[in-house]
Amino acid sequence: MFRNRKIVLDSRPIDKVSPGNFRLVEDTLPAPGPGQVVVRHHYLSLDPYMRGRMSDAKSYAAPQPLGETMIGGTVGEVVASENPRFAPGDFVVGMGGWQLYGSSDGRGLNKVDVKAIPLQAYLGPLGMPGVTAWWGLNTIIAPKAGETVLVTAATGAVGSVVGQLAKLAGARAIGVAGGPEKCIYATEELGYDACVDHKSARFAEELKAAAGKGIDGVFENVGGEPFLQALRRLNDFARIAVCGLIASYEGPTTPLPDMRIFLVRRIKVEGFIVSDHLDAWPRAIGELAGHAAAGRLRWRETVRQGLDSAPQAFIDLLHGGNFGKMLVKMI
Amino acid sequence: MFRNRKIVLDSRPIDKVSPGNFRLVEDTLPAPGPGQVVVRHHYLSLDPYMRGRMSDAKSYAAPQPLGETMIGGTVGEVVASENPRFAPGDFVVGMGGWQLYGSSDGRGLNKVDVKAIPLQAYLGPLGMPGVTAWWGLNTIIAPKAGETVLVTAATGAVGSVVGQLAKLAGARAIGVAGGPEKCIYATEELGYDACVDHKSARFAEELKAAAGKGIDGVFENVGGEPFLQALRRLNDFARIAVCGLIASYEGPTTPLPDMRIFLVRRIKVEGFIVSDHLDAWPRAIGELAGHAAAGRLRWRETVRQGLDSAPQAFIDLLHGGNFGKMLVKMI
Repeated sequence: MFRNRKIVLDSRPIDKVSPGNFRLVEDTLPAPGPGQVVVRHHYLSLDPYMRGRMSDAKSYAAPQPLGETMIGGTVGEVVASENPRFAPGDFVVGMGGWQLYGSSDGRGLNKVDVKAIPLQAYLGPLGMPGVTAWWGLNTIIAPKAGETVLVTAATGAVGSVVGQLAKLAGARAIGVAGGPEKCIYATEELGYDACVDHKSARFAEELKAAAGKGIDGVFENVGGEPFLQALRRLNDFARIAVCGLIASYEGPTTPLPDMRIFLVRRIKVEGFIVSDHLDAWPRAIGELAGHAAAGRLRWRETVRQGLDSAPQAFIDLLHGGNFGKMLVKMI
Repeated sequence: MFRNRKIVLDSRPIDKVSPGNFRLVEDTLPAPGPGQVVVRHHYLSLDPYMRGRMSDAKSYAAPQPLGETMIGGTVGEVVASENPRFAPGDFVVGMGGWQLYGSSDGRGLNKVDVKAIPLQAYLGPLGMPGVTAWWGLNTIIAPKAGETVLVTAATGAVGSVVGQLAKLAGARAIGVAGGPEKCIYATEELGYDACVDHKSARFAEELKAAAGKGIDGVFENVGGEPFLQALRRLNDFARIAVCGLIASYEGPTTPLPDMRIFLVRRIKVEGFIVSDHLDAWPRAIGELAGHAAAGRLRWRETVRQGLDSAPQAFIDLLHGGNFGKMLVKMI
């Protein structure tokens, strides 16, 4: 028996998410039955996609049901197992949700190697955000050496990997981030050739200067005004990978004002969800792990302490209050 | 010496093209010099892209210079040649422009076989419009059997080929056209499974009914309100080939109101210009000629008589006054 604590969705946000949309529930988890495994979660991943699940608008995934544990990626340690694939002491990554313990039949649970890689990296550069970066950059943008790739939320869990992979591919990488501290990190630590602060009053001019000969690929995580400015800097045959539009999740929609740009510049825009491409995950994680082991991949985390901090941490994530991957440490 | 007549661009349209933007010029064409060839044009092709060239807004191609012969595709007969590749009596397709005779060094001029195919078809289904249809459908939409493809300007020079190729690929084809006569032709002659009249007051409902289980591919020639309605009917992973936006060339721009559809439905939108893909032309024309020879490809023409009719014919084309390929017969 395990004393569990979990956070459920109590009500759907009308406009912006508030702490009152969540509710903490305590209960007990029985010892595992045949085939089952219980995981003590060490870290919970907070990711922008969760905002979509909290609404009941039609989307690619079913909405998060009210009264049930919030969906979320987790890493942790197996503490009890009646499943031959797992033994106590194994470290695993899975979709355990916003709770201290997860119980499952082992499907969707994968063992990870923590000898050289910190456990929580499997929620970041070697997990869903890393694969998202890899897939969108390599299959939609497919940058050629010498091309210029723009990455919004450039220092976030996804964007930071995109920028580094673009540089490894021989492209110029330009970041867009919120505030000078993130921009300095982008250029000095992540290797971006330039980074433009979207909070700057001179954003449009600074983006134009940073873009140089124009932009060939956009990895879009944010939307809003910076996206509209980026459209003005596109070169012919530019590719835009639409990964997220966090500025619109609780703000005005991001339009594309004039479809004619598709003709004039022969632009491609493609949205994607990494979970549609599960077959690519092993290769992507293999490559990312190789880069990490060779010291070619850097990342940064914002770690909040304790399950109770998750609602506010999530709200902060939606408004740029994270620096790198947003995690909740639960042990 | 040939007595030539040609139409030059006299002024740029402020808003809508008017006959006064064009001017007829008469001059003489000398006998060909070494390497040169003179072609008597039989047909001039009128195409929507010409509207873009008449403006000096930045676009993929340089604007049509004022005072020079309007650009345009032509088919005709070689009447004098000092070029070993061509002999009098050869039929050729090229970009001869809005004039009775064309003189060139032979570059961009291609001989055509008129034994089984009418000469002017090389300006239509076996020419630029046909290749445009082939390229956009096969490389951007790439319909799978059983999928549904929507084609706007469904009976036009490009759209009519798209619909027939989509059917040959095993897809359902839905057309959008202006007026009941074009819609009847679309379903009864071109083989569309359904056709919706964009002039209908009940267009949105009729499109919804025609779309059935939703739309997997859109071949967009028009833009405007029908495009916005089509967005509402898209299935996940739909592909939109943006070939033209004729409704916006002299009307309001076509926006994409909310980029979020790219995420929610994982949509791809890609604009293209067939002249970027010259390497695909021989294969495309080969396949189209095969379909034509086997009786699998139908088309229709609107033929205006005489070079002087070209300006008004072009204006009519921009407003749907054509039925199928718009041609000017010049002999």
